[in-house]
Amino acid sequence: MIDSKSLPIGVFDSGLGGLTIVKAIQKLMPQEKLIYFGDTAHLPYGDKSPETIRQYAKEITHFLLSHSVKAIVIACNSASAVALDTVKAEAKEVPVFDVVRPASLYASSITQNRHIGVIGTRATIASGIYKRLLTAISEEPVFVAEKATPLLVPMIEEGWLQNQISLEIIHEYLSDNVLKNIDTLILGCTHYPLIKNQIQDFFSTFQSNPVTVVDSSMTVAAYLQKGLDNANLLNSSPTPAQSLYFFSDFSQNFEDSAKLFLGKKVTFERVEL
Amino acid sequence: MIDSKSLPIGVFDSGLGGLTIVKAIQKLMPQEKLIYFGDTAHLPYGDKSPETIRQYAKEITHFLLSHSVKAIVIACNSASAVALDTVKAEAKEVPVFDVVRPASLYASSITQNRHIGVIGTRATIASGIYKRLLTAISEEPVFVAEKATPLLVPMIEEGWLQNQISLEIIHEYLSDNVLKNIDTLILGCTHYPLIKNQIQDFFSTFQSNPVTVVDSSMTVAAYLQKGLDNANLLNSSPTPAQSLYFFSDFSQNFEDSAKLFLGKKVTFERVEL
Repeated sequence: MIDSKSLPIGVFDSGLGGLTIVKAIQKLMPQEKLIYFGDTAHLPYGDKSPETIRQYAKEITHFLLSHSVKAIVIACNSASAVALDTVKAEAKEVPVFDVVRPASLYASSITQNRHIGVIGTRATIASGIYKRLLTAISEEPVFVAEKATPLLVPMIEEGWLQNQISLEIIHEYLSDNVLKNIDTLILGCTHYPLIKNQIQDFFSTFQSNPVTVVDSSMTVAAYLQKGLDNANLLNSSPTPAQSLYFFSDFSQNFEDSAKLFLGKKVTFERVEL
Repeated sequence: MIDSKSLPIGVFDSGLGGLTIVKAIQKLMPQEKLIYFGDTAHLPYGDKSPETIRQYAKEITHFLLSHSVKAIVIACNSASAVALDTVKAEAKEVPVFDVVRPASLYASSITQNRHIGVIGTRATIASGIYKRLLTAISEEPVFVAEKATPLLVPMIEEGWLQNQISLEIIHEYLSDNVLKNIDTLILGCTHYPLIKNQIQDFFSTFQSNPVTVVDSSMTVAAYLQKGLDNANLLNSSPTPAQSLYFFSDFSQNFEDSAKLFLGKKVTFERVEL
């Protein structure tokens, strides 16, 4: 009989962004083997309709289950927003984690003034998922300030992390009046951990009250660890595991971008679903 | 018997960018009815592999043929670069036009110093299509300076056309040394006509020699008109035609973006291929 603890964890995203989640999980639980699936043939999910995203998520879930994963992490805000129930229904008894809930729970637990900000792609913000969830989990009233920041993903993918223009784009977005009174900001996109320091710097320099920046990759990893522990599924092996990386399509600059997110070079495999 | 001249012209792109081509065609030939297909379920093509793009182009060609089009315009640089032969093979006797050739022919005919610049998405530049074509069609040696400018599409879609940041992004890209000696610049992306004036202004202000900016939407429309005329397929009706707009998926902010490109509000229909 196979020990469930030694089985891999499936992680999926529409592209490369979810690799920031992979990096955070590997840092916290190096003994866990990950099966990553980046749906690059269909990225970005943010421009797709909910029905289309659910169909993709369903197929990816079947792919991950075919690799006997012991848990599934939806490392994509758009899919977390609209396809969590779909993935859970397909995954049956395999536990499913998403990126929206851990960050929301953490932000809700640390805010002092009950003003939480969320930045993300246009699709994530339009879905209203963070606002709904933060409102639902907070016992006291909470004010959620949402701001779509669509230029940040291509800016990060261009490698413009802290040049003059990137700092101006960050400044332009974060100085929006709607974020004026927040004391906590959720990075509602898997790309944003790469500019967390610059975002933190903006608030330190231009906002009078201190603002805590919540990096969803760290909170997801912590939440996953707790969930696996509760289900008695944590791998107790002392040996660091080798993860596998699958993508539905390859493109130019792919390896460079992956290295930017993961901080190391890895081998990819292409798979059509 | 149906008069071939009164049949519609099929135009397709991976999304909304091709609407700048539609606008140029409608301006030049208001009597022509267009069937537009935006493959928004699969955008952006720039991140897809050539095989994947060819498969999409094939399916779209069948869709357009099912509407009895008399000609097909590939209003997408990525598809023009890798799928022209595929579309021609599927379209059989229906003439096929693309966005790369007309702009290249025009640029080649007007350059004085034989230094032509091309800007486009990372995928278009990586494909090397403009360089190959400009080299092939030029009788004298030509130097082609290529520059990928990936932030311009999301910047335009954000509606940042001439604020401080957009001018700085344009400046950052166009002041690249590689473009220093050009006298002609091809806008190798269907989004860029929306910032043609700002690009022209950059060269007028910062470059000592005059630079002519070649807007591919205008050159495609002119090329198409000539091609239809040669094939005796120009619609001679004096009445402006009503075009149809199909998309494979709808997303947030869709209507607003379409209006940005087309300059007017139109009705969309969703169709799955």
